[in-house]
Amino acid sequence: MVIPSLIESKRDGAELPPGSWAAIVRAYGAETMPDYQMAALLMAVVWRGLSGAELSELTSAMLASGARLDFAGWEVPRVDKHSTGGVGDKTSLLLAPMLACCGAAVPMMSGRGLGHTGGTLDKLESIPGFTTGLPLSAAAAQVRRLGCALFGQTPEIAPVDRRLYALRDVTGTVPSVPLIAASIMSKKLAEGLGALVLDVKAGSGAFLPEEADALALARTMIDLGEASGVRTVALVTAMDRPLGRACGNALEVEECLLALGGEGPPDLMEVTLSLGAEMLLAAEIEADRAVARRRLEATIASGQALRKFAEIIEAQGGNPAVAEDPALLPQAPHSAVYRAREPGVVAEVRPRAVGHGIIAMGGGRTRVGDTVDHAVGFVATVRPGDRVEAGQPLATVHAGDAAGLEAGAGALDEAIIIGRRGVVPRPLVSHRVTSGGIEVLPPTS
Amino acid sequence: MVIPSLIESKRDGAELPPGSWAAIVRAYGAETMPDYQMAALLMAVVWRGLSGAELSELTSAMLASGARLDFAGWEVPRVDKHSTGGVGDKTSLLLAPMLACCGAAVPMMSGRGLGHTGGTLDKLESIPGFTTGLPLSAAAAQVRRLGCALFGQTPEIAPVDRRLYALRDVTGTVPSVPLIAASIMSKKLAEGLGALVLDVKAGSGAFLPEEADALALARTMIDLGEASGVRTVALVTAMDRPLGRACGNALEVEECLLALGGEGPPDLMEVTLSLGAEMLLAAEIEADRAVARRRLEATIASGQALRKFAEIIEAQGGNPAVAEDPALLPQAPHSAVYRAREPGVVAEVRPRAVGHGIIAMGGGRTRVGDTVDHAVGFVATVRPGDRVEAGQPLATVHAGDAAGLEAGAGALDEAIIIGRRGVVPRPLVSHRVTSGGIEVLPPTS
Repeated sequence: MVIPSLIESKRDGAELPPGSWAAIVRAYGAETMPDYQMAALLMAVVWRGLSGAELSELTSAMLASGARLDFAGWEVPRVDKHSTGGVGDKTSLLLAPMLACCGAAVPMMSGRGLGHTGGTLDKLESIPGFTTGLPLSAAAAQVRRLGCALFGQTPEIAPVDRRLYALRDVTGTVPSVPLIAASIMSKKLAEGLGALVLDVKAGSGAFLPEEADALALARTMIDLGEASGVRTVALVTAMDRPLGRACGNALEVEECLLALGGEGPPDLMEVTLSLGAEMLLAAEIEADRAVARRRLEATIASGQALRKFAEIIEAQGGNPAVAEDPALLPQAPHSAVYRAREPGVVAEVRPRAVGHGIIAMGGGRTRVGDTVDHAVGFVATVRPGDRVEAGQPLATVHAGDAAGLEAGAGALDEAIIIGRRGVVPRPLVSHRVTSGGIEVLPPTS
Repeated sequence: MVIPSLIESKRDGAELPPGSWAAIVRAYGAETMPDYQMAALLMAVVWRGLSGAELSELTSAMLASGARLDFAGWEVPRVDKHSTGGVGDKTSLLLAPMLACCGAAVPMMSGRGLGHTGGTLDKLESIPGFTTGLPLSAAAAQVRRLGCALFGQTPEIAPVDRRLYALRDVTGTVPSVPLIAASIMSKKLAEGLGALVLDVKAGSGAFLPEEADALALARTMIDLGEASGVRTVALVTAMDRPLGRACGNALEVEECLLALGGEGPPDLMEVTLSLGAEMLLAAEIEADRAVARRRLEATIASGQALRKFAEIIEAQGGNPAVAEDPALLPQAPHSAVYRAREPGVVAEVRPRAVGHGIIAMGGGRTRVGDTVDHAVGFVATVRPGDRVEAGQPLATVHAGDAAGLEAGAGALDEAIIIGRRGVVPRPLVSHRVTSGGIEVLPPTS
């Protein structure tokens, strides 16, 4: 196999012959194919795409480059949820304990913040003592014991994907449906799942903002999952505004504790319950959607889900007392109310600007290895469509110092657009996608 | 300047802001921009192209990354010819002494064989003792003394282009009009020229086979040359069959010695005289094309051009006696006549197959640093359109051993296509391109 001629073929729009992608992943894994050839090939893939056969071979090869969670001989239905990334998207922290309370096993391997989006691992690590770096065997053992583990991609999982991911981040080769799909699915298929629910974001704050791209990504990942025997379903959800009110690591954990206590904001609860019901159906734990939703709501009303979350925190080295006392989470030393500069209607709350504001305050990374100030962020009470008066409080900025407060307020100037009329926001949960097709969902209020 | 965001802009089809390409070349030259980012960017350029302003900035920055020939205070008109590369294309070796005999100065910086094409430096080095590795100051001094020097790109000339060239070769990013144009012109503009004539090849043996691409490349290079104050003209010439009869380093030098002696094959002489007349006109040494051609022919008829070639050979350490006795050139120990396998009409003599045959016999490189057997190659007397009988001699194969003879014959099986009717070949010199436009030339014979 001559790598340059494969790059040329892809550049010219051809489908690479069977075996090519497996050989490419092997060569890259063995470091006989240098980064510069991979970077050129990745850009050619962004340009030309991959056929279904190529994508399937690439995903399988990346999966095969590493280890998998071992649940041999254990019959509890295993299901996970994966989001393509957003701002204020904290549903994983709710769904993991809620599903575990319903008899599902949730081996939830998550990522860190990427670009303007937050990451589940960073949020969890704002809990004092919480460890996300579980070895695979420990993660699997905790799933068997508690029904859930919340952990990071270890070096053993899809190591070629880890290197490709880092390379794509610095070579402008992130926004490609097949590359995103292969990266996500090579990790999710290592979790030993029976079912997987995908939360594919659409709107300006998504990595692929266009609805058509979101639907294409959903279909692509569903095909990969189903081909590997994993029942896979996707919901397309709104990321033209942040989800919930809190954006920032500890602030989002605090909002999750409120939500598990029955006081979550309506949009967050709607997305969480929609995804959770899909998970119970896909895992064949429930057969009726309305029953599934009620069962999930009951885990909150009974206090069971909050207790499960405390158990998970304790099992992973964190202080379980945060579940009852969110003030134990890191608190930013400075905060300020952000007020409307003019009267009007809130046209937009732009997730990218909010996410970049968190990074500017030190709550995210601009490069791998940056330390994160977990306490900083925003709590925005204002939603698109709200009518506001000049001087009305719209959000609170939480920062580490005065400069951070200023940076945060500047970000909100970019994020919160007040105009004469509102922009119609995306439906919160707009489509349900399965291997059978795409279903447009009715509005949820 | 953040390199990844520049890569993203180019990937999305944008024109990069002024200053971006200069900064990219500086960063790559200083090795703060790694090869993998450059490789991704190059593929994005193959995809999206470059605007005129971007190309001009890239070319200037590559030129500025190195030294130039210094002809300060010297008023002799300086002109060069550059070919985009072909098989059997040996016009440089004829034009350099012929133009010097007409009062032009020719600082001819040439390259080595690339892919299936031959290189002027390799041909010259088949002359015993000939050195192409002149320091820039020595090359300039020889041009002032003899009117001509034939030398290679030194490490001081456009060093960023040298590294980019090597990277493009292994990342599938060679066939891009702006990248080819920037690479050629960053070197040619370092020669301190007043005029430049481009021989842009079209046909299956060219790097850009399509006529439309050849014309686009010509226009692009002309714009770059004229913007730098160099009068630039291009001829589009045929590379759907080899030029002349001899293909292979020493064999081509031998054909040049024959040509300077007045016995060159008609196609080689036609292309040489067409290019040479353009050079005399562009350098404003002659004002009339017919007069220019006659003056060039006279340098051959008088023996002056052959003597000039001998002078150049001697000045660069070679044995000038080869000019009178081509048998002093390296001779392949084995040769065999290649005969028609069937009767018919010669439909094609494919340059790529001929070029690959030379490489297979050891007369070219498959990687940088390979040693070259200068003696091997082909002398093909057959031309497209010729009617042949079974068993009729079509070519002679010159090889280092019996395996080489076999490889050579095999290559000719691929190269010489005998059918029931001929394919209409490209006009030898089809277009003349200037900054004013494209002129379709009348057939020559």
